[in-house]
Order: sequence, then structure tokens, then C-alpha cells
Amino acid sequence: VAVTRRVRLTLAYDGTAYAGWQRQGNAVTVQEAVERALRALTGEAPETLGLTGASRTDAGVHALGQAAHFDTASRIPTEKFPYALNTLLPRDIRALAADDAEDGFHARFSARGKQYRYDFHRAPHAPALQRAFRWHVPYPLDTDLMRGELDSALGKHDFRAFAASGGQAKTTVRTIRMARLETGGADKMGGTGDTEEAALLRLWVEGDAFLYNMVRILAGTLADVGMGRLPPGAVARALASGDRLDLGQTAPAHGLALTRVFYA
Amino acid sequence: VAVTRRVRLTLAYDGTAYAGWQRQGNAVTVQEAVERALRALTGEAPETLGLTGASRTDAGVHALGQAAHFDTASRIPTEKFPYALNTLLPRDIRALAADDAEDGFHARFSARGKQYRYDFHRAPHAPALQRAFRWHVPYPLDTDLMRGELDSALGKHDFRAFAASGGQAKTTVRTIRMARLETGGADKMGGTGDTEEAALLRLWVEGDAFLYNMVRILAGTLADVGMGRLPPGAVARALASGDRLDLGQTAPAHGLALTRVFYA
Repeated sequence: VAVTRRVRLTLAYDGTAYAGWQRQGNAVTVQEAVERALRALTGEAPETLGLTGASRTDAGVHALGQAAHFDTASRIPTEKFPYALNTLLPRDIRALAADDAEDGFHARFSARGKQYRYDFHRAPHAPALQRAFRWHVPYPLDTDLMRGELDSALGKHDFRAFAASGGQAKTTVRTIRMARLETGGADKMGGTGDTEEAALLRLWVEGDAFLYNMVRILAGTLADVGMGRLPPGAVARALASGDRLDLGQTAPAHGLALTRVFYA
Repeated sequence: VAVTRRVRLTLAYDGTAYAGWQRQGNAVTVQEAVERALRALTGEAPETLGLTGASRTDAGVHALGQAAHFDTASRIPTEKFPYALNTLLPRDIRALAADDAEDGFHARFSARGKQYRYDFHRAPHAPALQRAFRWHVPYPLDTDLMRGELDSALGKHDFRAFAASGGQAKTTVRTIRMARLETGGADKMGGTGDTEEAALLRLWVEGDAFLYNMVRILAGTLADVGMGRLPPGAVARALASGDRLDLGQTAPAHGLALTRVFYA
């Protein structure tokens, strides 16, 4: 008899060409692309594989460390899966690692935290090379004001003001464990000619879980405060009021990347 | 009467979709895309504009700071050109700056130096996001050995061993003014989840001028020495012998970007 085991997969993808992670009837999704490659490799149908992602990333959102699990009776050694999958997957999706999952492991329900980054491009003109991975903001951004907003978001709060209408969370209390804003710069890599690197402003956030669109609303609010479109203190006011209207715009999907899922 | 002036343009482009800079009859090039936008803006034909790039970047090669000039009788203020061009150009080409050129300025002949970078991705699996901008090398690379080769390349030498057969240079003596190899890393931006950043190995080279394919042959030789496919000392041997066979492979175009052109 074939023994079924659960495999945990780490994936990176450029979300540009996909209608998000989750399988849909009428659009190309990352889940379907991975299911197709797994099926070609193992002969197992999607219903058998039960491929499940830790995060249902939205259309256009990227991943550098999405986690997923699937069940297989295949004799392919677990550690060979990334190499075999990468010969079958489109080049904008890469399997980075595969591990035998612990008993009871579930990519979504076992997750203890997630890390995201959001990349802004602050310059008069949009980036030619990194255009698929950054939100172009052609206005000056006051990073001190933006960091002030981030400080207010840190810690355990009721983030219901950040809950986009599409969300279905039972509770809107979340803990942001880390939030920082880093500036790019020519000095980082020694070269003076990387004008796109110099224009990079990168937001890192890590928390126990995130509401639907929460990081993009946070990024958009930071930008609005940074460019003077919203008065400073927006995040603190919204956490007190619970009112989405105290916050700024929802930043576009293509600046966002899921970087890590924590299970420890 | 219309007064014709010369404008110096700074451009960035993702070379993926283009058969290089130089106009061709049968393929889409960056020069043609910029000529088309300039014609739509000024009404002037390519023959009148005389758009000339500092460097004829090859098919697939990128630019973060290509320089070019064109002649125009348009009344459009010089500093408005980037904004106007960017509304007409495809998103993978951006005009970054425009300046009135000094008397006698010629984008190619006035150039006093160029800076390039070459990006390697050293990891078991290729990058999903940065796949268009890095050469994936799935073998361990000894960066100390690679830096040793770079040290040999520094300074004024006869680089004829580095001259690809397509070159037409009168002399093969060139001076490399700067050459360094930088490693990416999670610590740079504070986040731990950027697995593609951590796999980045970046070569910077700056010199008075470069022979055809010279940077790609240098990058390929560094990689071959770094992975043990060529014995250390390859660059020194090739500079002494003038023999292309003492060097390594020509690294693929998509890892290369022209970052700056110097005129001072």
C-alpha cells in the first residue's frame, strides 16, 4: 500500500502574471500552476494533493517565502521536489525548499507569524527595471513622519480600521512584532550608478497574522502621511476610532511581497 | 527660423524585450522606441534627431544610466523632455534626465568612462523575481579567488584576449579604474526574509572604455575561477598571452547593466 506523507514546500513567485495564490475557475493562479507541476510529477490529482498555501496572496502580490503543504504517496525523495518542480514550473515561480512536515502540520493553521515587505520607489520617474516590484511615489516622502506612524502600529491592537471589506476574520486583534522602514542607497553596494537602488524605500512588517489588505493599507497610510496628504497620527487615530476613513489609500499590490511564514 | 539644439538624455531600460540599443531593420531596439517617442513629441524624423547612444548595449543587456544625445528644434523646455517622453515610452524604458549639451558634445565620442555592474545569483534555485536581471550560478563560488582575478584586471592593460570576435576596436588597450565584488545579505536591509537579496553577488567595473563583450567575458571568467572550472590566475595569464582561450565563458547578457557614462 502506498503511504501518504505531508510535504512542506517553500515557494517564491513573481505575482505579476497571476490572479493571486488561490485557485479560481476563470483566471491563472499560482496554486494551479503548482498543482499542474505536482500532478505531472506524481500523477496525483489536485483533490488528492490538497495543496494549501499559508497565505492567499492577492492578485499581483509577490512571494519570496510562501509556505504550502501537499499530501503525496509518491516515492520521490522529499528533498528532490524543488529540483523536479523547477523543471516543470514557469520561470516566475520557483520551489526553494521541501521538507517532511511534522505530524499535524497545516501550512495555514500552524502558522505562528508572517513577514511582509513593501517597496516604494521615491523618485521623479518610475523604475524601468524594478517596475513590477515597487510602488512609484513621485512626491517627497518624510521618512521620520512615516516611522512615527509605524511606531503607533507596533504591538497588540484591534486593527479593525485596517480590515478591508473583503475580510472575514472573526477577531481583528493582531500583534505587529516588528516594523521598520529602510532606505536604499548607493553606498550599500559600493557602486554609485544604481539609481533604482538609491530610490528604494522598503517597509518590513512582521506579525502574528494580518487582516485582508492590512499591509497595503498600512503602506498607503505611511505614504499619505509621508507626502503630507494625511496629518501625522493617522494610525493612532484609526486604532482608537476603528474607522477606515482615518487611514490612507490602499497601496497597490505590486509593491508587496510575502517574505516569510513562521511556524516555530 | 528654428534653432536646433543638442539635448543630452539619461535613460534606464530593462533590456529583456529588446534586440539591444542600436537600430536594426528587423528587430525591436531601444533606440527605435526612443526615436518613436521623440518623433511623436517633436514631429522630427529619426534622421533629423540623430539619436546617438553612448554605448551600443547588446540584446538583453540593461541600462540604469545610458547616455544619449539628439538634436531638436522643438520649443519643449529641455527639462520637460523626461516627463513628456515617459508618457509615450513603454514602461520598460524610462527617461531619467535631460540637459542642454555643451558645444561639441557627442554621447559616444565625448565619453571619458563607463561603469557596469554584473549580477550573479548564487543559490541552488534561480530567482523568481529577479530572474531577468541575474545570472543563476547553482555552484559554490569562491569570492576570494574571484577578487584575485579582479585585482589582475585593474589598471591599464592590453585586453585583446577579452575582445570578442565581433569587436572592431583599433586598439585593445584599456584602463579599468575600479573593480569590486560585493555580496548581498539579509543584514543590509534589516529583513531576514529576502532570500534573493541574500543570494546576490554583484560585480562593479569602471573603466575608460570597454571592448565588445569585455565585461561579460570578465564576469564569466570570474565565475569559472570561482567554481573551480578554471585555475586561479586566468586573467593574468590572458593579459600576458593575449589568448581568449585562457579566459572563461562569456556570461549571459541578462546579468549585465550599464550603470553610468562619465563625461567630466
